[in-house]
Amino acid sequence: MAEMLIEDELKNEMISWRRDLHRHAESGFLEMRTASRVASFLESLGYGLKVAEEVMDAKERMGVPPQEVLDAHYKWAEQNGADIGWLPKFKNGMTGIVATLETGKPGPVLAYRFDMDALDIQEDMSEGHIPFEKGFTSMNESKMHACGHDGHTSIGLGFAKMLMDKKEELAGTIKLIFQPAEEGTRGAKSMTEAGVVDGVDYFIAMHLGTGVPSGEFVAGNSGFLATTKMDIEFKGKAAHAGGKPEEGRNALMAASSAVLGLYGIPRHSAGASRVNVGVLNAGSGRNIIPSSASMKLETRGETSEINDYIREQALAVIEGAAKMYGVEAAIEIVGEAKSSMPSEELVDVLAEVAKTSPYFKTVVPWSADSAGSEDATYYMERVKELGGQATYCIVGSDLAAGHHNERFDFDEASMPAAVDVLYRSAVKLSRA
Amino acid sequence: MAEMLIEDELKNEMISWRRDLHRHAESGFLEMRTASRVASFLESLGYGLKVAEEVMDAKERMGVPPQEVLDAHYKWAEQNGADIGWLPKFKNGMTGIVATLETGKPGPVLAYRFDMDALDIQEDMSEGHIPFEKGFTSMNESKMHACGHDGHTSIGLGFAKMLMDKKEELAGTIKLIFQPAEEGTRGAKSMTEAGVVDGVDYFIAMHLGTGVPSGEFVAGNSGFLATTKMDIEFKGKAAHAGGKPEEGRNALMAASSAVLGLYGIPRHSAGASRVNVGVLNAGSGRNIIPSSASMKLETRGETSEINDYIREQALAVIEGAAKMYGVEAAIEIVGEAKSSMPSEELVDVLAEVAKTSPYFKTVVPWSADSAGSEDATYYMERVKELGGQATYCIVGSDLAAGHHNERFDFDEASMPAAVDVLYRSAVKLSRA
Amino acid sequence: MAEMLIEDELKNEMISWRRDLHRHAESGFLEMRTASRVASFLESLGYGLKVAEEVMDAKERMGVPPQEVLDAHYKWAEQNGADIGWLPKFKNGMTGIVATLETGKPGPVLAYRFDMDALDIQEDMSEGHIPFEKGFTSMNESKMHACGHDGHTSIGLGFAKMLMDKKEELAGTIKLIFQPAEEGTRGAKSMTEAGVVDGVDYFIAMHLGTGVPSGEFVAGNSGFLATTKMDIEFKGKAAHAGGKPEEGRNALMAASSAVLGLYGIPRHSAGASRVNVGVLNAGSGRNIIPSSASMKLETRGETSEINDYIREQALAVIEGAAKMYGVEAAIEIVGEAKSSMPSEELVDVLAEVAKTSPYFKTVVPWSADSAGSEDATYYMERVKELGGQATYCIVGSDLAAGHHNERFDFDEASMPAAVDVLYRSAVKLSRA
Amino acid sequence: MAEMLIEDELKNEMISWRRDLHRHAESGFLEMRTASRVASFLESLGYGLKVAEEVMDAKERMGVPPQEVLDAHYKWAEQNGADIGWLPKFKNGMTGIVATLETGKPGPVLAYRFDMDALDIQEDMSEGHIPFEKGFTSMNESKMHACGHDGHTSIGLGFAKMLMDKKEELAGTIKLIFQPAEEGTRGAKSMTEAGVVDGVDYFIAMHLGTGVPSGEFVAGNSGFLATTKMDIEFKGKAAHAGGKPEEGRNALMAASSAVLGLYGIPRHSAGASRVNVGVLNAGSGRNIIPSSASMKLETRGETSEINDYIREQALAVIEGAAKMYGVEAAIEIVGEAKSSMPSEELVDVLAEVAKTSPYFKTVVPWSADSAGSEDATYYMERVKELGGQATYCIVGSDLAAGHHNERFDFDEASMPAAVDVLYRSAVKLSRA
Repeated sequence: MAEMLIEDELKNEMISWRRDLHRHAESGFLEMRTASRVASFLESLGYGLKVAEEVMDAKERMGVPPQEVLDAHYKWAEQNGADIGWLPKFKNGMTGIVATLETGKPGPVLAYRFDMDALDIQEDMSEGHIPFEKGFTSMNESKMHACGHDGHTSIGLGFAKMLMDKKEELAGTIKLIFQPAEEGTRGAKSMTEAGVVDGVDYFIAMHLGTGVPSGEFVAGNSGFLATTKMDIEFKGKAAHAGGKPEEGRNALMAASSAVLGLYGIPRHSAGASRVNVGVLNAGSGRNIIPSSASMKLETRGETSEINDYIREQALAVIEGAAKMYGVEAAIEIVGEAKSSMPSEELVDVLAEVAKTSPYFKTVVPWSADSAGSEDATYYMERVKELGGQATYCIVGSDLAAGHHNERFDFDEASMPAAVDVLYRSAVKLSRA
Repeated sequence: MAEMLIEDELKNEMISWRRDLHRHAESGFLEMRTASRVASFLESLGYGLKVAEEVMDAKERMGVPPQEVLDAHYKWAEQNGADIGWLPKFKNGMTGIVATLETGKPGPVLAYRFDMDALDIQEDMSEGHIPFEKGFTSMNESKMHACGHDGHTSIGLGFAKMLMDKKEELAGTIKLIFQPAEEGTRGAKSMTEAGVVDGVDYFIAMHLGTGVPSGEFVAGNSGFLATTKMDIEFKGKAAHAGGKPEEGRNALMAASSAVLGLYGIPRHSAGASRVNVGVLNAGSGRNIIPSSASMKLETRGETSEINDYIREQALAVIEGAAKMYGVEAAIEIVGEAKSSMPSEELVDVLAEVAKTSPYFKTVVPWSADSAGSEDATYYMERVKELGGQATYCIVGSDLAAGHHNERFDFDEASMPAAVDVLYRSAVKLSRA
Repeated sequence: MAEMLIEDELKNEMISWRRDLHRHAESGFLEMRTASRVASFLESLGYGLKVAEEVMDAKERMGVPPQEVLDAHYKWAEQNGADIGWLPKFKNGMTGIVATLETGKPGPVLAYRFDMDALDIQEDMSEGHIPFEKGFTSMNESKMHACGHDGHTSIGLGFAKMLMDKKEELAGTIKLIFQPAEEGTRGAKSMTEAGVVDGVDYFIAMHLGTGVPSGEFVAGNSGFLATTKMDIEFKGKAAHAGGKPEEGRNALMAASSAVLGLYGIPRHSAGASRVNVGVLNAGSGRNIIPSSASMKLETRGETSEINDYIREQALAVIEGAAKMYGVEAAIEIVGEAKSSMPSEELVDVLAEVAKTSPYFKTVVPWSADSAGSEDATYYMERVKELGGQATYCIVGSDLAAGHHNERFDFDEASMPAAVDVLYRSAVKLSRA
Repeated sequence: MAEMLIEDELKNEMISWRRDLHRHAESGFLEMRTASRVASFLESLGYGLKVAEEVMDAKERMGVPPQEVLDAHYKWAEQNGADIGWLPKFKNGMTGIVATLETGKPGPVLAYRFDMDALDIQEDMSEGHIPFEKGFTSMNESKMHACGHDGHTSIGLGFAKMLMDKKEELAGTIKLIFQPAEEGTRGAKSMTEAGVVDGVDYFIAMHLGTGVPSGEFVAGNSGFLATTKMDIEFKGKAAHAGGKPEEGRNALMAASSAVLGLYGIPRHSAGASRVNVGVLNAGSGRNIIPSSASMKLETRGETSEINDYIREQALAVIEGAAKMYGVEAAIEIVGEAKSSMPSEELVDVLAEVAKTSPYFKTVVPWSADSAGSEDATYYMERVKELGGQATYCIVGSDLAAGHHNERFDFDEASMPAAVDVLYRSAVKLSRA
């Protein structure tokens, strides 16, 4: 029988943290209260901390909220339990943290990634939804932890505590990356570009759930699609449609032509590709030639190369459509992720240690099931480029409803399971 | 020197009415307070009244507000000065009135049209805007008499009073039509279809301003474009754009294809035509295939025939585009107007009597300047079809800002001028 | 009774010339045999001649046939009755002539334009078609004088002979312009740019027929639409549509997007506009991504300003569509004409002299009936810019079938009528 | 060492047949000379024959040439070596043959498919192209055996001869299917629908080359894409683009809208899909609104289900686009094929016997390399539906140039290799 490493006290602490985070859901780049409390706790454990500009390249962030939203949320955090000492570090959407444990013994550099952001979803408030029944639904309108990152953050904290408690079992250096804005794949690039995984020998990211049941563990998840998310603003010139049609520059015609062109981007023989214009809003009045049209689109590819191809074609389509109708197109990349294949050797190690964990009945070395995207791929690709190994693992968790659903909820018992397997990997890898 | 027929008391009454209407601006089919007070006053003068279903074919109305808006506004009218006796007649957007004066002497049937509705515009609240300075700006948010129909209604009431005062000068029958929802060309058809101008020998509609200065009168305005206004709802099927793109039915692609097709409707060799898609809103989320797209469009033609051609082509484009992408298209006609040429003989009479009025320095028999549309053309075409004569005249009025502008205001001195020329026409025509 | 000025001998000569030209129909820039014989005859009459480069700016020609066609046709002309002395001057599509008569007396400079080219139409060869019955149908396959320019050239020669015969009646200077390639509006610009009407005081162009019957004369025709004719070649990259779709650059998608964009160019409030893509050919095989698409299009405008607007929009559409799909667009202007309003004073003179001609029962000063285009407008605009007067007149002629029809034929009796009125104008204007 | 079964005499005969067929290349449904000679030879060997209507459902043929082409080619065949006895059976494009060998011993029913048609390609006539050097290039202009079906037919004949020679080694029934019009996937459906493989226990189709080198054998090729090939004719109404644009019904606009819609058909999550409009020709003259547009398109899918989906969407796009512009769309399916997975058990048998053949150095059980389509899939799916087994095998052959290239040529030594392996399979399967 495998040894139970996680004590009840830590389990309960994680549940308590998780419910506090769930109640105070903060979406991408607004994780100010969250980050301030995470930093305060990690500091209290004795970790060396780097935050904000030290671990994020501000200009590589994507889809940052407008300044007035950042400012208003800062005030909210101030009044709703943020750690007042740490909070000022995290203003203006610079909400990343890297905590480092130097064991003092020679050994490799390990890094673990935990994402902290909620979604722009209005949480369900009805019977049968456990956060409602237990009174910890989000107090923020249209913000909800509907993907489990509240759990990820709590796992990160529990893992941090356990590592520090058992520091003597470990060697080398262990870095814990707490990342903002994974939703929309907006935050990882800024931390990667700031160098947070440079020099890392083993990198592990994890996710709860994603269809994998409680008691199952996937050591290497390879199915993430590369993706690019763009916001487009076509700007033309309004004119009275009856009186002076020739004076208009029609942003809606440009957008319509772009829509047809975008869906018509050729398929790629090397694998699956996707393109979608999910939202288009144009024009102001029935008898006015539309002077503006705004569009939300995303491309995806089975590999980064395929996505790059689709994205380049999309840019040409948009710029050409604007030119056709004499309008301007402002293109903003608001999210981006790569595809990345886990390192075989590291997957084997992770699968092996998971088999020694009492929390998992089933260990799946490889899976390619996901049709979504993840920006942890930025770290993975960087680590592999620099000669290290990387993987993305799934800690199974029974769900009340699917990810991004207003009634999403995960099995809190998966949190100690996650800490257990991560701890086992740290021991194994750091002393290898 | 021509005789001054309008007394100062009536002038002041009209100013007072107009400012009350301006302060309580009600847009199309919501003219409940207005209609109730108009009816009450006309009744007090001794007119025979028919209202609501008696003078409107409910199903021929276009662009009627949703029931909840009608209901909410009814409550507002109740609490804001409506005539409580008359108000219940005008619920549910049936706000038309026809007042009839039977002189008792043999003679022709005359009809005059006055429109009562305001626009969905937020009135300017700053210095220099006279309604603001004098304290009679609209108390209703985003409702404003920015086209002068408050003046038209007041002119109608002043004209009604004068006719009754001088009933002995007149012969035949005189009908005063108070119409809802001229803006968007939504109301006249329902009154025409209810037969309010059947049997009319002479029909006269009037407008203040439209670029004609105070002191000038246009007897026959011929430049109105026929028009059709449509709201389109494309309904498809949502699907996850990454996971199951084949399951979607893309309403945005249908709308985009329709947009390009609509602007591509061929020009007409017989005269000017127009088409515009002023507004398009589609989709819900970046990674969801858009299941809905709503579109506001209008067509216009120099003649009704040209507009009919453009409208037919537009319907084919929309239905075809829906079929292309496997979606449904719900098409609602929310406004419609014809072109109509004034009757030469009636224009001559009107020009002649205007020359005898002391209010006009300049009388222009014919003008074709307008590039807009008017649903008075429904009455005009019906009257002419049945053998009568019809015209549309302009009473000049200096404007503070153009029609439909948030700082629109007209010269209140034009109101007695209008009553004067209409009265002279009534005398002349009824005794001819 | 007006004096009959044209003798039977000249009438018969004109018929003979016309039938010879009809039999040897030569289309735009291939009028080598025609020009050589025209030049030879005018020289024999004693005119001073300038030809080819002296009167044409080669690079301002539009839609010149390929060199191999020019060379082949030169050989044909050599073997089919061209004047061998003059022919070499007219090689390579430089087929313009200006003949000048200096009267030696002081007076204004007059210029008359005659066009010489046939169309790319296969002439009808059946009973009832007079050229067939009388044996003078075109010997050149798919070349036919189906617009009456054979008549125009013969009128020019008859007029030249008459002017020289009656030189003593005239004053000032008279220039006769024999122009290539009016069809497709390709030739006039090159002669205008070479300066052939600089310094001209009165310019007159003429056409037979165009719906005006024999015996009627129109002194000022104002209805020509400005036009631009373009050939577009989209060049992309072929790829196997099944195997490597991502490697293609799809010229057909660019062309399709351009087609929809072109027809969608906004209407112009100042007057009629047109755009048409008459021909599109794209692709090579069902399973190959189309690497080329060629398109023939034309724009028109009621005024040159409107056409300029449509043309500029069209160029943007084409370039933008190419950019959308990563292909190249080669745009060639293959024809262009302006709109031009005849000079009122000159129209009055022409109408006045026509009334003195025994050939016309009806004289119409102004007409705007044509919906076609004419490149004589280049000369007209230049002459008016430099302070002269210009007009375009129609000599009525009963037609067997419409212009550009394979059974087109005009009334040869209109030729002396034309010479008569032109001669009367020359006398009147030169001695004014 | 494996036994060499094929004698030199048969090798030489096959080469002689193949060169005769190559010289007299006949494309789909025109294989009249070919079929008559095949039938004559098989009859001489003693096979029972069924031909034309007996083995083809005429109305299930796709892309049949026009009657005048069928008639003209029949005359050509008559004069160029067709078997005059058999030829009349094969008129009107009914060129299929099934030859049956009844061994008289109990056993299963085996069927082998050989296709006979050439391509519409002009063969290269220059040094280095062996058919040119040896004097057997196609005598028919723009017809060429550029895919090796001349070889397939010769293999079929050689196999037939060997089977009859060694009848005593065999059991059960063996059917040899000689099929017309595999190119464009036009012929197999008509034979399948006529029941030629109903009751078959084992079905084998084969191809030479396709990238597999001489000496290699692939027992189960699974990569064929399902496909549909369509010809579309949009028919509208011509009008003069300048004079009466409103009278046209623009077939080019419909086609252009269809093109953009077709390429925009959503990707399918279950696998690869393709759509291509390879050819579009529209319109007649620059100033005429195009009244016709013809389009050649094809769809493909990794499975029949995916192709069915794409085809249904394509039909909706085409019909909707026609409706948008008021034109008619005539849609003709001119070719169709399914996807089909070989039967595992049969692939194993075939791989096993191939390993016993002295002709193959390499035996590959499974390959999915092809990105093309094959209508042998019709037989395969039918056989499997009825409980039998089926496969598609590749006999490697070094090629001078790729399939469908004007310099295509295969290694004639692959023909005896093919006969050898097919014979071994017949022995093995018939006696199993």
